[in-house]
Amino acid sequence: MAERFTVTYLVIAADEREARQRALDIALEQTVEIPRDVVPAGYVEDEILGKLEDLKPDAEGRPGFLATISYSEDDIGGDFLQLLNIVFGNSSIKPGIKVEDIGLSPGILAICPGPRHGIEGLRARAGIGRVPLLMSAIKPVGLSTAALARLAHDFALGGMHYVKDDHGLVDQKTSPFAERLRACVDAVGEANAKSGGRASFVPNITGPAGAIVERALMAAEAGAGAVMLAPAMTGYDIVRTLAAHPDFTLPIVSHPAFSGANVVSPTSGFSHRSFFGTLHRLMGADAAIYPNYGGRFGFSRAECQSIARACAADLHGLKPIVPAPGGGVNFDRIPDMRDAYGPDVMYLVGGALLQQPDLVSACRRLADAVEGRSA
Amino acid sequence: MAERFTVTYLVIAADEREARQRALDIALEQTVEIPRDVVPAGYVEDEILGKLEDLKPDAEGRPGFLATISYSEDDIGGDFLQLLNIVFGNSSIKPGIKVEDIGLSPGILAICPGPRHGIEGLRARAGIGRVPLLMSAIKPVGLSTAALARLAHDFALGGMHYVKDDHGLVDQKTSPFAERLRACVDAVGEANAKSGGRASFVPNITGPAGAIVERALMAAEAGAGAVMLAPAMTGYDIVRTLAAHPDFTLPIVSHPAFSGANVVSPTSGFSHRSFFGTLHRLMGADAAIYPNYGGRFGFSRAECQSIARACAADLHGLKPIVPAPGGGVNFDRIPDMRDAYGPDVMYLVGGALLQQPDLVSACRRLADAVEGRSA
Repeated sequence: MAERFTVTYLVIAADEREARQRALDIALEQTVEIPRDVVPAGYVEDEILGKLEDLKPDAEGRPGFLATISYSEDDIGGDFLQLLNIVFGNSSIKPGIKVEDIGLSPGILAICPGPRHGIEGLRARAGIGRVPLLMSAIKPVGLSTAALARLAHDFALGGMHYVKDDHGLVDQKTSPFAERLRACVDAVGEANAKSGGRASFVPNITGPAGAIVERALMAAEAGAGAVMLAPAMTGYDIVRTLAAHPDFTLPIVSHPAFSGANVVSPTSGFSHRSFFGTLHRLMGADAAIYPNYGGRFGFSRAECQSIARACAADLHGLKPIVPAPGGGVNFDRIPDMRDAYGPDVMYLVGGALLQQPDLVSACRRLADAVEGRSA
Repeated sequence: MAERFTVTYLVIAADEREARQRALDIALEQTVEIPRDVVPAGYVEDEILGKLEDLKPDAEGRPGFLATISYSEDDIGGDFLQLLNIVFGNSSIKPGIKVEDIGLSPGILAICPGPRHGIEGLRARAGIGRVPLLMSAIKPVGLSTAALARLAHDFALGGMHYVKDDHGLVDQKTSPFAERLRACVDAVGEANAKSGGRASFVPNITGPAGAIVERALMAAEAGAGAVMLAPAMTGYDIVRTLAAHPDFTLPIVSHPAFSGANVVSPTSGFSHRSFFGTLHRLMGADAAIYPNYGGRFGFSRAECQSIARACAADLHGLKPIVPAPGGGVNFDRIPDMRDAYGPDVMYLVGGALLQQPDLVSACRRLADAVEGRSA
């Protein structure tokens, strides 16, 4: 028998009998996908068919049960997307099933070496100790490369550790990718020369399927400090591919665009922690951007904290990564965020800084605020 | 000014005032993603910022409004994923926003040449006229290549036009991709030689990011009749890339694994028609598999019919594609499906055939049933 890994699902059901039937259906759907009465005896039934290992009422009081199902590593076939398919492929389409937690096994770790850098690597690159990381984004789409590079300069001069492209910046005619990359790396370098800082530029490499690795290598060659992409659009395996690529060694920042449907419903998709924490570490992302609580998105404070915990929790030796809450983060919210996240976090602040009359000093006030220094 | 395209969203809101505010927030979020008061005047505000073009109560009586927002082609930058990002990137994460319809513009069609084959190409390959297409799947994972090839043979001999891999078959040790591809193409060819039919084998090329194009080319070289992949895992641009690839000309079948979160909620994600119809045609899929109504998934008959209509509707000259409902399709359901879908459909039937004592004759009965011939 091969090693088995587990997935725990929240299964919405009126009673244990219904929950058990739904869980057995998941075990079938996610593996053999044929009626139970024609599952071939022997290897397929004994090894490949999912096994219901545990079923109990939900501890959080949601109207359902937690079903833990084990699957064989043989079914993964060394393929990360097949792992995702086993975890949630067809069952993602059934209402009232949510992936709560994924329990790894050795074979998964062989496919997924995980983040190369993690939070410590991102801090080392920025030359800082155990304090929060700061990231901002140049935007909006439609500005010229010169204007965007000027923003990158000012963010870096103000003390942001990572200055990323807005996730909507790709290869628009107003600021083509290669031109923007060069100009922003230069602008951040110029700011570093003035400040003695070690800020990095982070281009968005979300793009045509055939261009992503090429842009990643261009970014490294040009002197970028990390790259960003949105795996719900680019596909999840490209992150893993880059994190294990022999010629590419930069950190990877993941953006949540288009992933919302995976986490927006309380009774379908993934738990916040399994999606932004476990899956992102398996993919090899070093930083996971997600919408912060209390802003214009709907995540709760507790959900965001669960993401942060999953980014840091022991996970079979995979490096801890940095949770990067963004979306409506402004100065007023910093004190509560300090309380919620502690130091192991990356503050992603964009619009709130752009609203300030002087961008450089606004960045400095932000840096003071996140470390609890009075301005 | 560049041409503009539109997206119509269902916006859940208590009243028109709230709906208008939410719609204006979408227009901001999906384009400039900065507070309204710092949107730069001129090109960014006039061209890039989304414009609310229409707002009206939902005609279907859902508790919200339909907001139509227009976006500039300049924002797309020739990048299909950036189009998806504009359509729904960050707003996918906000509860109570659903993409209802996408209104194309000329620049989108320049990026997305669409399906190469469509339903007519799939019929021509199978050598049939305007009758329903038949597809089945070899499974389960865990069977040997020989056993899977035997199934492929029998499905083809029974008259299935397309015989696909189960979407969980990748490169497992029990049946490695290249070995299975060769064996199944041969087995289907042998059946065709006996029957005089023109069945095709359709391998699953969902896999590591760097292997997908390679497997597609291998499939073509080996004599497969189409390929299948699951874009919610592989990324959406790889379908477009293959559909426009100079060295690859096979039809593409899309599988819905892992996409469920996009369509499972009535108040978030995409409408069934925009996701499985419009988006799949833009990507260049020739057949879109989705869960049929009345089976073990939750789609309604009307939702499934809306998909079928969107696969066929006039879409600026993009070829009509074939809706491929599957998942629990059995003999009892054929009469109602004939009524629901008419002839422009691909019946995807797997488990129900495997439950029959004689697979070849079961396929023949299915072919009779879908064309309304008495058995």
